[in-house]
Amino acid sequence: MTNNGSQSSARPGKQAIIAAALKCFHERGYEGSSIRDVAQVAGVTGAAVYHYYGSKQDLLMEILEDFLAKSIQATKDAVSRVGSDPVARLFAAAQSHVLWNTSDVAASFVVNSEIRSLSPENRAKHIPKRDELQRIFDDAVEDGCREGLFLTPWPLEASRAVTVMCTFVARWYREGGPLSAEEISWRYGHMALSLVRSTRGPQMDLPTYGEIPIP
Amino acid sequence: MTNNGSQSSARPGKQAIIAAALKCFHERGYEGSSIRDVAQVAGVTGAAVYHYYGSKQDLLMEILEDFLAKSIQATKDAVSRVGSDPVARLFAAAQSHVLWNTSDVAASFVVNSEIRSLSPENRAKHIPKRDELQRIFDDAVEDGCREGLFLTPWPLEASRAVTVMCTFVARWYREGGPLSAEEISWRYGHMALSLVRSTRGPQMDLPTYGEIPIP
Repeated sequence: MTNNGSQSSARPGKQAIIAAALKCFHERGYEGSSIRDVAQVAGVTGAAVYHYYGSKQDLLMEILEDFLAKSIQATKDAVSRVGSDPVARLFAAAQSHVLWNTSDVAASFVVNSEIRSLSPENRAKHIPKRDELQRIFDDAVEDGCREGLFLTPWPLEASRAVTVMCTFVARWYREGGPLSAEEISWRYGHMALSLVRSTRGPQMDLPTYGEIPIP
Repeated sequence: MTNNGSQSSARPGKQAIIAAALKCFHERGYEGSSIRDVAQVAGVTGAAVYHYYGSKQDLLMEILEDFLAKSIQATKDAVSRVGSDPVARLFAAAQSHVLWNTSDVAASFVVNSEIRSLSPENRAKHIPKRDELQRIFDDAVEDGCREGLFLTPWPLEASRAVTVMCTFVARWYREGGPLSAEEISWRYGHMALSLVRSTRGPQMDLPTYGEIPIP
């Protein structure tokens, strides 16, 4: 399963090119893949790729920007659905982040390893959006600390550790493994609360995969 | 600073080649780097590279194997120094893993992103060693759960989350940042204990960067 994160609103030709680029960049890296490789995997001509993208750099930037924009939106949606409680917000953000990254492990890999390949200008545009995503987690953790719900002495480090552990589930997760993405995300929601030393659980309507570990 | 992880016992020529390969693979990826690139950065001829390594694949494998072997050794040493207490062992493993990965962020990046580029035979040799490293963390967490010291209901998931969050500190850590690697590793030791819901702190002689957060 892929989330079609970079593809849903694209035209068919564009969609095939982005899917092909993701496959190439995932398998061989950005520098190890040429426009010719991408075109070949997409089953189109090099000229067709250039019709949509001025350069390989444009293609990479669109993939990264699109994945990150949708990641931010998914996290914001998940958080706003559960209201203002910081415990529920952190749980929802962690859960959503695991689900998002496991929904397209190739895209997650590329987005999280090819920032090095962005041009300085593209990187300067991209980094603030990464910070925006992190800020959703940070806000929940800082609010939780302020309200005495989270006991971690290091809100920002803990928040970053949560984001990282959720992002990189995509490195080992495989469909058809012993746990579904939903169950993994539910466990990571709870582990995120443990990491910030939450004094209680999310107190919201959750699917049950086992006993909820934080009372 | 680099840990010279892949270089300490190598001859000067070999050492320059490995350093150059790490630089190339870190900046452009394995597939995006040629033996010619590596030779150029090392200031040697392509023939000199082939004198030591039969292929680019051999070079990658040596880098990965060496980094991982030293990583396993560093973690084992850190854990055995603190005795049998699972709390102290997990703390020491997490701390050591952060220090190891931050000591050479380029090598950490390459080792954690280029497993995809190993040949099937090399991958089959490499993966069991990754599992061996993970097993050091798993043993501490499972022992802690068995002894009632850790309350996490998911020892293996929590253990993997700890390893991942410590490994990927190398993605954002930069020398000269607001926190030293030592202080970050100390915080991560404590955060690892929080993640597994430890009922107490490591009870060992530790440097003090602030109040020890788990009583």
